[in-house]
Amino acid sequence: MIHIYTGNGKGKTTAALGLIIRTLGNGKQVCLIQFMKKNFVYGEIKFLENKPGIDIFQFGTDQLVDPNNPDEIDFEEAKLGAEKAEEVLKSNKYDLIVIDEINVAVKWKLLPLEKQLELLDIKTDAEVIMTGRYAHVKVIEKADLVTEMLEIKHYFNEGIQARKGIEF
Amino acid sequence: MIHIYTGNGKGKTTAALGLIIRTLGNGKQVCLIQFMKKNFVYGEIKFLENKPGIDIFQFGTDQLVDPNNPDEIDFEEAKLGAEKAEEVLKSNKYDLIVIDEINVAVKWKLLPLEKQLELLDIKTDAEVIMTGRYAHVKVIEKADLVTEMLEIKHYFNEGIQARKGIEF
Repeated sequence: MIHIYTGNGKGKTTAALGLIIRTLGNGKQVCLIQFMKKNFVYGEIKFLENKPGIDIFQFGTDQLVDPNNPDEIDFEEAKLGAEKAEEVLKSNKYDLIVIDEINVAVKWKLLPLEKQLELLDIKTDAEVIMTGRYAHVKVIEKADLVTEMLEIKHYFNEGIQARKGIEF
Repeated sequence: MIHIYTGNGKGKTTAALGLIIRTLGNGKQVCLIQFMKKNFVYGEIKFLENKPGIDIFQFGTDQLVDPNNPDEIDFEEAKLGAEKAEEVLKSNKYDLIVIDEINVAVKWKLLPLEKQLELLDIKTDAEVIMTGRYAHVKVIEKADLVTEMLEIKHYFNEGIQARKGIEF
């Protein structure tokens, strides 16, 4: 089963994280692959990184990607991320595989859409979750379940900045 | 700050769970209050229940509530849940307070809307998350952030049943 969490609202990555702990709590094996997030000190990584049952692989740099002018390393890291995702999807080792922010990596052309579609075509018994805004319509077509997180009301609109422990 | 996760799509409770582990990973204190979920063996509860930094309180029974004909105990448990929520919101003990499925408890009239609005009016420095479909418009008005999880595509529509470890 392939789930997509997309849309402009909050809760895409966190919904995947919630499913991760539900799955770990049921004694199953989880893999979390993150694009564009290497070395960011996220609370969730600090919490999960040494727990049994989960493997975490991060790709990217510790800088935010500039979508209008990505660095060469952003492309290289996205390629490595896709290679790891392919390996993990084919491994039959996990019950849940989360590929975080891949939709954005494709939208920003760090990764070709065709590569994401190839990953979606890999046969696996695992639950697969792909997250990020801007899921391509062809990705949505291949998914079994798609949830759009829709921002109805947001305090960022009122000028409040992202806060540690909540937004990251 | 008050966040609401509502809508007919997946990811409402799991997004709150993801925020819980992000918050715990940042060394902060969390309280999870769940309506209509007592003694259900959820993977996330098995995973979280003995972790440091989190207190979990469940209200309800081990049976699904019949929205057209709730039992007396469903009303009693919802009332106890609201009392616990009030106590927790006033305690200044937590950085994040998740009140799970309260929107549904109000929709099904286990709890008066006025009680939920009273809870929203309690002054607290904690992040407060209320989840569940059917968030009332007056609840949305009082919230700082509202995300609607919108079902775009769902395999339940194709006749597949809920699966342990994924849906619960």
